[in-house]
Amino acid sequence: MKRVLHITPLLLLSAILGGSGLGQDVQLTAPTKSGGLPLLDALAKRATTRAFDSKDLSDRQLSTLLWAAFGVNRPDGKRTAPSANNKQATDIYVLLKTGAYVYDAHANKLVQVLADDVRSLGATQTFATNAPVILAFVADLSKLGNGNEESKPNTANVNVGYISQNVYLYCASEGLATGARGSVDRKALGPRLKLRPDQLIVLAQSVGYPKP
Amino acid sequence: MKRVLHITPLLLLSAILGGSGLGQDVQLTAPTKSGGLPLLDALAKRATTRAFDSKDLSDRQLSTLLWAAFGVNRPDGKRTAPSANNKQATDIYVLLKTGAYVYDAHANKLVQVLADDVRSLGATQTFATNAPVILAFVADLSKLGNGNEESKPNTANVNVGYISQNVYLYCASEGLATGARGSVDRKALGPRLKLRPDQLIVLAQSVGYPKP
Repeated sequence: MKRVLHITPLLLLSAILGGSGLGQDVQLTAPTKSGGLPLLDALAKRATTRAFDSKDLSDRQLSTLLWAAFGVNRPDGKRTAPSANNKQATDIYVLLKTGAYVYDAHANKLVQVLADDVRSLGATQTFATNAPVILAFVADLSKLGNGNEESKPNTANVNVGYISQNVYLYCASEGLATGARGSVDRKALGPRLKLRPDQLIVLAQSVGYPKP
Repeated sequence: MKRVLHITPLLLLSAILGGSGLGQDVQLTAPTKSGGLPLLDALAKRATTRAFDSKDLSDRQLSTLLWAAFGVNRPDGKRTAPSANNKQATDIYVLLKTGAYVYDAHANKLVQVLADDVRSLGATQTFATNAPVILAFVADLSKLGNGNEESKPNTANVNVGYISQNVYLYCASEGLATGARGSVDRKALGPRLKLRPDQLIVLAQSVGYPKP
């Protein structure tokens, strides 16, 4: 008889000491990879919301949100959103009450970069910082451009549009509220996230329950 | 008793003389706005394909593809993909065997700009021009930027990423093949589509049945 280890999502999301030396990494719950609203219904409900309840997402919702956004959907490591020349040059920084993390899609893990709540820097409009989750889409310009400096910001932006639309559709399917915006306090947030000069915050996107 | 006019999709797609003076516009069949694969299953199947069969899409598939991409999904005229400041500054040019058209989402119509088949200009890689439908996503820079010239190309690109991901997911749901690319012969295609200097071809995306 096999022994089965029962772990609740809450326990799975409890921080485990990470190997990065940066702090406490979080092993995410397994994402849900099937189901949800029929695609065309999700498209019919796709909308930007600007008022959020502060209620947290469940562990499963958070891991599924990230998988939907830019998770690995094939054995060869390819992703739910395309990227120019498959460079996968976008990182999702996840700003939560407990800190800021980078989503490691291959390990289904959040790698902690900061133990502080910096959600207030993820938006210049206060409505958006009340959300329990703020995603900051960060382009790694060193991976882009094929030697063409000029095309790098364009590629960075189109890559992020793909990912951000996945977030919109997952939220439409799940009854969550979301809104993306270019208005991010880049000068303040970049250093707190320990970004290198060739990392560019393209957009931020709030995710939460709609305000009742 | 109400008289019901029965019109087959084929008849609906037959060209009607347009009011634009540019040629024959096409009133599209009503798109399907519900159903399809569950969202997470569509995300699991999202992929780029590079080999297409030349078989045409059905009229309903073409209109649903365009609605999914950037159709009107709310009574106030908002769309299935967000756009910076709701400027809706992206036009979808649709390259078919019968000609090139602009998608009018509000009228669910294709407005003809050219009666020639210019699909071969929609890709610099020949694999992609075999597809029955090539979408060219064109930014109207005159509607963008809020006075900030520098941010216009960034905004144009992120806007197109949103729309292109909708196309990827519709194709995943419908069993169609699709691939987007930046490699478009802009110098040749722009004048054929009668683009103004402030219109920018951001990406092109082929759509068709997968090669058997």
